[in-house]
Amino acid sequence: MKPEFEVTILGNTSSIPVHGRNHTAQAVQIGQEWLLIDCGEATQIQLRKFKVKASKIDHIFISHLHGDHYLGLVGLLSSFHLGKRSRPLSIYGPKGLDEIITTHFRWSNTRLTYPIHYQETKDNQLNLLLNHPKFMVYSFPLKHRLPTTGFLIREKPRLRNLIKAKLEEQKLPIEAINSLRQGMDYIGVDGSFYAVREFCYPPEPVRSYAYCSDTIFWPELIEYIQGVDLLYHESTFLEADKQRADLTYHSTASQAAEIAKLSKAKKLLLGHFSSRYKDLSPMKAEAENIFPEVELSEEGKTYSI
Amino acid sequence: MKPEFEVTILGNTSSIPVHGRNHTAQAVQIGQEWLLIDCGEATQIQLRKFKVKASKIDHIFISHLHGDHYLGLVGLLSSFHLGKRSRPLSIYGPKGLDEIITTHFRWSNTRLTYPIHYQETKDNQLNLLLNHPKFMVYSFPLKHRLPTTGFLIREKPRLRNLIKAKLEEQKLPIEAINSLRQGMDYIGVDGSFYAVREFCYPPEPVRSYAYCSDTIFWPELIEYIQGVDLLYHESTFLEADKQRADLTYHSTASQAAEIAKLSKAKKLLLGHFSSRYKDLSPMKAEAENIFPEVELSEEGKTYSI
Repeated sequence: MKPEFEVTILGNTSSIPVHGRNHTAQAVQIGQEWLLIDCGEATQIQLRKFKVKASKIDHIFISHLHGDHYLGLVGLLSSFHLGKRSRPLSIYGPKGLDEIITTHFRWSNTRLTYPIHYQETKDNQLNLLLNHPKFMVYSFPLKHRLPTTGFLIREKPRLRNLIKAKLEEQKLPIEAINSLRQGMDYIGVDGSFYAVREFCYPPEPVRSYAYCSDTIFWPELIEYIQGVDLLYHESTFLEADKQRADLTYHSTASQAAEIAKLSKAKKLLLGHFSSRYKDLSPMKAEAENIFPEVELSEEGKTYSI
Repeated sequence: MKPEFEVTILGNTSSIPVHGRNHTAQAVQIGQEWLLIDCGEATQIQLRKFKVKASKIDHIFISHLHGDHYLGLVGLLSSFHLGKRSRPLSIYGPKGLDEIITTHFRWSNTRLTYPIHYQETKDNQLNLLLNHPKFMVYSFPLKHRLPTTGFLIREKPRLRNLIKAKLEEQKLPIEAINSLRQGMDYIGVDGSFYAVREFCYPPEPVRSYAYCSDTIFWPELIEYIQGVDLLYHESTFLEADKQRADLTYHSTASQAAEIAKLSKAKKLLLGHFSSRYKDLSPMKAEAENIFPEVELSEEGKTYSI
């Protein structure tokens, strides 16, 4: 059975929270780990509403310092503190976020019950932020009005599944099995040889998720997200408002679809909708013209990767 | 007709927002003015939910720098900016809040579309913060873990109502009428004399509202709030958890009632309830034993003063 790899949308509105839509945040479950990407105001309320256990989150990734992407962070950190969290928390974000956090806690005279490891993101290249035994998280540049990064989460190859019938024919030493499951042929000290392709099913493809918000239409980013299984790309405006998108360094639904197409993503999830649109169905229709595997993100909904 | 003077509760929970209760904030309407007292996370969402027009708010009062009382402020200020507000906004709060606000907007590279007038509160005495033609707002000390103030809003005497029958008997010069309505006897240059008590109904009593959150049980504060029509006093705990109240510099429902009784308030509104209590009816019962005119604040409900 494949381990979980899914994203739950906690908020998908840009600028002003209206139409029952909240500021950007999403929880990613990958195996036993929970990651939070962006943390707009009221994220802690959304986490509770959608029954995501906030205390399980050990890694928080902030794309940039516009308020709709991070103003829920200090509140969430405070709630961890009130809940007497002791496990360390890693926060990855642009220069400045650490100053903002420490300014708040300095004035509230708070000594947190848990350590924060802060890692500054860079918006000039692909950077490995987290090297977990089961997956990697990278940041990569986006093009917006402030230093902004997207995030790429990519599974590491899982252990291969053994072909049972083959194992029944021959009794393999345990070292051989370990080696084969890791995808390596095995040569014993006695000269015995076991080939991976003979004893194992082909490897399950590794899955990946890319988060791109906020950004102007910027084809250079496709080098970082080639072939992802799920691409979340901001879609603040419709093509009819393209001028506004250019001016504010945001994308249209068509442009998001274009990026999905160019990067050969398997599926596109649209979000970060402007408050000017109550009905979002034209967003989907516009994107579908260019890239058929598209969905409008919905708050509270979980998308498998 | 008396001008409006009423308070709408936007949030009344302490520490962690659960049981559908939100962090502290309240909107006070007094005549044509709207004031905001405290601004916990998601206040802008609560304002919208309860149909309080945020754009009408020109004065924001922050009691202290614990996150549950102010973490919605930068989000609200950002939304004013996105809404292209131009009218000045006054913010009254403790030392440090201005640094927090400017740190956020420095990093997001935001030059607000409207000016903010920041006035620092002092927690050592009664201070006049706002002298409006129709009312005054004062801060006064509370006793908590951080520098904290309460707020007192007091109407100025309104123009007196004239006794029509009397006016029909005698024709008064306009200057005399203006003087009488302001509560002053009138002596004309011709030696004519008109006494207020003869031509006017007794003055309507001026109404007042006091906000006390957060504070430990602290009888010294009653000197600032004598005889208020409505007293909002924090009631974080029940008497059974009094030790916890003392430790965290909060009050119990009984203690809030004691303050209401000592200060001869006309009515007590309880709030800032700990997340440990889902059912709040014991809070009311406990306070009623000491001070009968008590109500549990409810989010979205408006209380006339």
